[in-house]
Amino acid sequence: MTGPCFISFFLLLNLLPFFHTLEASHCSIKGLPLVRNIADLPQDNYGRGGLSHITVAGSLLHGLKEVEVWLQTFAPGSRTPIHRHSCEEVFVVLKGSGTLYLASSSNKYPGKPEEHFIFSNSTFHIPVNDVHQVWNTNEHEDLQMLVIISRPPIKVFIYEDWLMPHTAAKLKFPYYWDEQCFQVPQKDEL
Amino acid sequence: MTGPCFISFFLLLNLLPFFHTLEASHCSIKGLPLVRNIADLPQDNYGRGGLSHITVAGSLLHGLKEVEVWLQTFAPGSRTPIHRHSCEEVFVVLKGSGTLYLASSSNKYPGKPEEHFIFSNSTFHIPVNDVHQVWNTNEHEDLQMLVIISRPPIKVFIYEDWLMPHTAAKLKFPYYWDEQCFQVPQKDEL
Repeated sequence: MTGPCFISFFLLLNLLPFFHTLEASHCSIKGLPLVRNIADLPQDNYGRGGLSHITVAGSLLHGLKEVEVWLQTFAPGSRTPIHRHSCEEVFVVLKGSGTLYLASSSNKYPGKPEEHFIFSNSTFHIPVNDVHQVWNTNEHEDLQMLVIISRPPIKVFIYEDWLMPHTAAKLKFPYYWDEQCFQVPQKDEL
Repeated sequence: MTGPCFISFFLLLNLLPFFHTLEASHCSIKGLPLVRNIADLPQDNYGRGGLSHITVAGSLLHGLKEVEVWLQTFAPGSRTPIHRHSCEEVFVVLKGSGTLYLASSSNKYPGKPEEHFIFSNSTFHIPVNDVHQVWNTNEHEDLQMLVIISRPPIKVFIYEDWLMPHTAAKLKFPYYWDEQCFQVPQKDEL
């Protein structure tokens, strides 16, 4: 009965360096091909039910400094948190439909948001610092979007509801998909 | 015989304000819906055979300052010029395939470029200032890509061939699709 366990143990020992290599290359631009198949990129829900997030081209993963591109898929009923960030953000809806909730940052708290229908082949952008939430309100289909942000990696202020004062919104940095590869930045080389 | 001319003249007078409105809204964020159907956005080849360019979200058209997104379709055999720019650029290939030619900016001239196969559902980015050209080398299919740049509007240096010294590359600014809406910038409000 100890045979298989013995084998498994050595198998595990042999695999450990392999996992370590995977981990290292996942957070480094070195050794990545210039042209990458998006289907081969790491995909995860990062603890958020119904989400699939892929960093298509990123700051921490690919060394970009000014833009970052995500491919995100929201299952029916799933959504982003209510949040804001001080960078530009552009959405291109590839599949499905849903609702964008948007409130300005000019009052003490967001208040009742505007509702905008979003749909396949539509595009929209979020004014810097406006509070927003994207929700797959279509019960029958996934909502898939390419998301482009400036000034990566993203620093997100999260609201519990639309009446929470802006000053009480909680900073989440590094954001969920940046946590694994985030290191405290060295002195800027510029 | 003067009847129809008379009518046409007044018809033209009536239409002029309409054309003026179209022109103004094409180059202004005012009055644009937040969520836009990409199929309704202005599309043109801007004098380049085989190209279809749509500014999905742009600096001059939509008031973005940090990122710009294009949807570009290249017919078989068509291509970008050989060029460089000092901004980041990310490509997401939506349909078709082709070739990326890429040369570094570290010598006096680009020299023989690397060739990279690009394909549907692939992504790649161009290192800042590297000289490159994207070519639909697939005879049978259009090549369609989403293109993301930082620091819009884009300032492009164009090369006649891969042996032209970097210093001889010719600046094209505003670029073809920005010409119609470009105005000499006012003092930056920041």
